[in-house]
Amino acid sequence: MKRNAVVAQSGGPSPVINASLLGVLEGCRDFPDHIGGLFAAWHGVEGILLEELIDMRDQDPEELQLRTTTSAGAVGTCRYKLTEAQDEDFQRIIDVMQAHDVGYFFYIGGNDSMDTAHKVSRLAAERGVELIATGVPKTIDNDVGDAEFSLIDHTPGYGSAARYWSYIVQNVNEENRGMSVSESVAVLQAMGRKSGWIPAASRLADPERQTPLQMYFAEGGHNLESLAENVNRELRRSGRCIVVVSEGFDVGGLGEMHDGFGHIEYGASRNTVAQAVINYLNKVGLASRGYATGQVPGVLQRSTSIYASTVDIEEAYRVGRKAVEVGVGEGSGWMATILRESDCPYRVRYDKVPLDAVAASARQLPPEWISADGLDVTDSFIRYARPLIGEDWPQIPIANGLQRFARLDIRFIDRKLPAYLPVRFR
Amino acid sequence: MKRNAVVAQSGGPSPVINASLLGVLEGCRDFPDHIGGLFAAWHGVEGILLEELIDMRDQDPEELQLRTTTSAGAVGTCRYKLTEAQDEDFQRIIDVMQAHDVGYFFYIGGNDSMDTAHKVSRLAAERGVELIATGVPKTIDNDVGDAEFSLIDHTPGYGSAARYWSYIVQNVNEENRGMSVSESVAVLQAMGRKSGWIPAASRLADPERQTPLQMYFAEGGHNLESLAENVNRELRRSGRCIVVVSEGFDVGGLGEMHDGFGHIEYGASRNTVAQAVINYLNKVGLASRGYATGQVPGVLQRSTSIYASTVDIEEAYRVGRKAVEVGVGEGSGWMATILRESDCPYRVRYDKVPLDAVAASARQLPPEWISADGLDVTDSFIRYARPLIGEDWPQIPIANGLQRFARLDIRFIDRKLPAYLPVRFR
Repeated sequence: MKRNAVVAQSGGPSPVINASLLGVLEGCRDFPDHIGGLFAAWHGVEGILLEELIDMRDQDPEELQLRTTTSAGAVGTCRYKLTEAQDEDFQRIIDVMQAHDVGYFFYIGGNDSMDTAHKVSRLAAERGVELIATGVPKTIDNDVGDAEFSLIDHTPGYGSAARYWSYIVQNVNEENRGMSVSESVAVLQAMGRKSGWIPAASRLADPERQTPLQMYFAEGGHNLESLAENVNRELRRSGRCIVVVSEGFDVGGLGEMHDGFGHIEYGASRNTVAQAVINYLNKVGLASRGYATGQVPGVLQRSTSIYASTVDIEEAYRVGRKAVEVGVGEGSGWMATILRESDCPYRVRYDKVPLDAVAASARQLPPEWISADGLDVTDSFIRYARPLIGEDWPQIPIANGLQRFARLDIRFIDRKLPAYLPVRFR
Repeated sequence: MKRNAVVAQSGGPSPVINASLLGVLEGCRDFPDHIGGLFAAWHGVEGILLEELIDMRDQDPEELQLRTTTSAGAVGTCRYKLTEAQDEDFQRIIDVMQAHDVGYFFYIGGNDSMDTAHKVSRLAAERGVELIATGVPKTIDNDVGDAEFSLIDHTPGYGSAARYWSYIVQNVNEENRGMSVSESVAVLQAMGRKSGWIPAASRLADPERQTPLQMYFAEGGHNLESLAENVNRELRRSGRCIVVVSEGFDVGGLGEMHDGFGHIEYGASRNTVAQAVINYLNKVGLASRGYATGQVPGVLQRSTSIYASTVDIEEAYRVGRKAVEVGVGEGSGWMATILRESDCPYRVRYDKVPLDAVAASARQLPPEWISADGLDVTDSFIRYARPLIGEDWPQIPIANGLQRFARLDIRFIDRKLPAYLPVRFR
């Protein structure tokens, strides 16, 4: 029996989140006997709750192809958190799906979104509703999964964030090396609230370890005092130092804000971690001997197309296609995944894992991949991460000197249900 | 009579500073009857004072060619300030030049460096020393020159910084548009201590003005209170806002540091302007309705090769060559310059202007190029700046997944004078 499909995107975007969207859309077309209509929800589950659905069969194919080089959510993302207590919201999701004869729900997102997909899947089963919910992993944080990498090797999005960091650290090193000041420190703040996967990728800028680079991870082991000691030691040795610090590094006493999922939103805190580091370095004497610059790329590390990894683009697309194959072939409750077959030559396979196993998981950097002094990663990490950043620049189209982004036709299909105000909007 | 030449680089780097270096080197080879030996001073005038000179004729030609795509000072830059009072330093420069039979001195830098070149030129003349000092303009700040653009149309380096901003604002706009939060503000802090040339280039991301973009210039007209009013008005209208704020924007009460030239070094101040803006927006109510993210690209905007403008690379090279032609043909005391012949089609010519006219100049954004509300630039600015960012990505070579930077053979030629401690190092 032919049913319709809904795809949605959630959370912070990545440069390849839309490659997964394209993978799902093209995957659905491979199953014409199972999947008829093809809708995207506008801004993730918010679009389902508000019955804001876009018909994706009407879109210009040329624009759709541009999705692989257009960063950020093509059909919008959200941070709307669904907890068990929001029974009304879950019922509404089921109602909207039934009203539009939706039999397949593909949710592209991180661990919280996999949790949402899992709950929708379970609730549909409990209520005897035929709705297959399938997860498509996406997060630059690489924090979905387990310590054994048996659930997923890496998340689409991470390879591009890793490439961003490996390239900007290369360029900052050129700049830092070329400047003549008695002591020069470049502090860069990387995303990753609870895990150091992103700052760790800085090491890919210099696998031979010839750069005076220090990394400070959210996983801990250091504080401002020990950071200053390490930096001063490097300054005495080489006169300069590049410090990549996780936004989750403990600098003590910073103001904090929280996003819709209850996560600390460091981007809006009263002072940045990078600035706290600089202020501390100056306080203990740097200001009189040299100087430090602060770089906070913020959303640039997750939204800049030119730093997308070609490997990541391809994998994000394939995992989207795999999700459709899993949904149609295996039924509800799975997440499509990427598992590694070998490092060199780099080879992965696409598979499925139960949504409940990945829901709300939080994988940190393996302790054995952090060097003994806590300032670096080991060669094992380099072997793991190096293949993810690819070999060359992606082809990012330009027209009239401006980046040529995909432009979808965002019109909602006719509503079939009364208006509804989501629980968190009340 | 054949004399030797010394070339040096100064100040903050740009993605094209080395294209000018290559232009000077190749220009010198065009005058084999005038110029014999070809030296680069290691870290600007510091390398002259310390007699640290590198023989550029020994360099691998392939590595030299890579200079056009290698950002940051190939032979090092400095911020060593030379004032009239440092007579000993000036005498040392003359002594080093004479010891190595140097008849040509090419100094690549901004307004302070043009001032240094001018003083060296004048002092040599006063003392009857045959030394031709010629300036090669370089600064991402575009603040060299006069309000009438008769001294220089734009400085090499500015086109690349402008391209950086036009591209990151495009990508941030995609990200900002795709996120669903009730009210979403992306704050980006741009370089430019006293002039708004760099934040102004954000407008090139969207010449049609369809993005909710506001710019705040160092030239003034706004403060935190009026900024918050403007942002809140835009949030009521479209739910989101992109704020590009100059590091020189007056946020009141920030700690300040100074660089070697006595300029305020905002990168090391106690809080960033971006964070001050975010904190103020939150204080007046944003935190309860949405959120703001802060982006401080810092040195990335002046050191990232992939954002170099192809037009800027070419012009930086040509102005380097022109400097040699001027030095050999016209004698001492000139700066090579770029003057515009037409906007569309974009055409420039290379010429010379007296060093004393540009020395220590400081050009701001023309008031008539700032919109009446002080939040935007006019179409005249767009016509001026648009040609400078070029049409397509530059070709940035990659080897083994890493950027292929030029690597020079940095060995100093034999010293001929006793060791000297520069005045500011004492």
